[in-house]
Amino acid sequence: MARVLTGIQSSGRPHLGNILGAIVPAIELIKQNKEESYIFIADLHSLTTSKDGEVRKQNTLAVAAAWLAFGLDIEQTTFYRQSRRPEVAELTWYLNCFTPFPMLANAHSFKDKSEKLSDVNAGLFTYPVLMAADILLYSADLVPVGKDQMQHLEMTRDIASTFNRIVEEEILTIPEARIDEVVKTIPGTDGQKMSKSYNNFIDIFLPEKALKKNINRIVTDSTAMEEPKDPDTCNVFKLYSLIASEPQIKQMRANYEGGNYGYGHAKKEFLELILEKYAEERKAFDYYMNNPEEVEKKLAAGEAKAQAVGAELLNKVREKLGFR
Amino acid sequence: MARVLTGIQSSGRPHLGNILGAIVPAIELIKQNKEESYIFIADLHSLTTSKDGEVRKQNTLAVAAAWLAFGLDIEQTTFYRQSRRPEVAELTWYLNCFTPFPMLANAHSFKDKSEKLSDVNAGLFTYPVLMAADILLYSADLVPVGKDQMQHLEMTRDIASTFNRIVEEEILTIPEARIDEVVKTIPGTDGQKMSKSYNNFIDIFLPEKALKKNINRIVTDSTAMEEPKDPDTCNVFKLYSLIASEPQIKQMRANYEGGNYGYGHAKKEFLELILEKYAEERKAFDYYMNNPEEVEKKLAAGEAKAQAVGAELLNKVREKLGFR
Repeated sequence: MARVLTGIQSSGRPHLGNILGAIVPAIELIKQNKEESYIFIADLHSLTTSKDGEVRKQNTLAVAAAWLAFGLDIEQTTFYRQSRRPEVAELTWYLNCFTPFPMLANAHSFKDKSEKLSDVNAGLFTYPVLMAADILLYSADLVPVGKDQMQHLEMTRDIASTFNRIVEEEILTIPEARIDEVVKTIPGTDGQKMSKSYNNFIDIFLPEKALKKNINRIVTDSTAMEEPKDPDTCNVFKLYSLIASEPQIKQMRANYEGGNYGYGHAKKEFLELILEKYAEERKAFDYYMNNPEEVEKKLAAGEAKAQAVGAELLNKVREKLGFR
Repeated sequence: MARVLTGIQSSGRPHLGNILGAIVPAIELIKQNKEESYIFIADLHSLTTSKDGEVRKQNTLAVAAAWLAFGLDIEQTTFYRQSRRPEVAELTWYLNCFTPFPMLANAHSFKDKSEKLSDVNAGLFTYPVLMAADILLYSADLVPVGKDQMQHLEMTRDIASTFNRIVEEEILTIPEARIDEVVKTIPGTDGQKMSKSYNNFIDIFLPEKALKKNINRIVTDSTAMEEPKDPDTCNVFKLYSLIASEPQIKQMRANYEGGNYGYGHAKKEFLELILEKYAEERKAFDYYMNNPEEVEKKLAAGEAKAQAVGAELLNKVREKLGFR
């Protein structure tokens, strides 16, 4: 049975783009496939760019709460925080010594980041080695990656092959990429790709009043209320269509084209749809946010499962390298 | 009470240069001073240059055996293997994220090594961060360093200060360097500095026959046996003087100057002196090499002591960074 491993960013509470683009499809896939699934919150990675401990803690909790609220089956999935399995840091050191310096220096993402960021630290530089350790510690067979992550997975494969060749034993599993061919791009409130950094996201977990405000920020044109409108160029319609049923979409399209239907009406319908469609998830999310000890318990269970698997691999590596 | 921390290389069994230059003075200092002493075998560091696990295991055992044979007091000293305290790898990741990339890229030792070595790996590059973690994990106050290590200690101080400043708390202890002003340079069999890499060392732990061969390799000139000789330009005399008593040195000097005393005689006396002076240490070394489980027990005791201290610091760091 193939083991699939996915790291999720812990940079904040997941927005509609994360939910429709990552959380829902991943949970669907887990339900359909008979694969063994590992999903971890990459909080160690987040230290490369953010140093605020309180924020990290809140973000990690929010990410876990969102996945749990959307029904991640933690029996089938090993769900854990990266930082709670410190074996990964030990493996990172070992792998560092099998990673050519120029490979890291020439990585696209490091070049990009070191041009953009003011804080270019050694964590940012060795990030791909930590990512390799994340994958190799659990002998993952498959890693779903976007196109921008392909180079990192190639590096993981390279590091693992080099290691196996030098120690003359196939200790590390060479992972395969699973490239998501049809990544749905979720538009934000301004029509660009929804992203935390563009500040154009819809946060479906907000309390109703704040959510209403959030939705009101969706950018529309100035067509008068009475005029017919083109749904296909409207951000409200695009967002609504992402989560509405076929009949609902058809109805809204008719409303747009018929006139006497303003963007305010559409926004109100979008709000109502979110409140209705995600009623359960919103409730569950609030529950988890207010009961962090419940989340802790669930994550701790995943971390115990991960520990057993990681320790086995790590012991093989330690022994082979003469550390045991 | 100041805490002094020393890392020792695990690149092979200690030779006379290591013993007189490092082991004996360190053990003396520990006896005299009322400092708290941490001494660890830096086996994780050795992975940056050597990948052979069996060799590493043997080297680590030999280093431990030599220190124990020379009477290291493991009640007063916390004596441990770096690799057995994986907390250090976790702290290394955290510190990586507080270490400016250019600081590492501009380090002398990395520049030197990357010119000389064919395998320039990421471990070699981030080595100073692991060294910082070694020191900071145990809140060491003092670190004895040679001049070539001064820059690394400066980096440790920089990383610790940056960390404390960013998290707004004095969590990490800024260590001071203790610079050995009068480092005795121990000459090798060819008169150059005794070093494993020059293959000019005296291995006092060899069995008698092999030790005799080793000593016979000391380079001398071709002055005939009958002729008087200059002790001050002779490698045998220099080596002998390092371990002989004043009267013994005086006597050999007279022999050299009197003539009818060959280098072979001097070598024989040097051999006899080693066998006599280090009789106990040679026996103890052999015992430990043949009873690795004894060494294991002693190191494990040190590792348990280190664990308690390291865990406390690490928990503070984890908490501050939002990982607990």
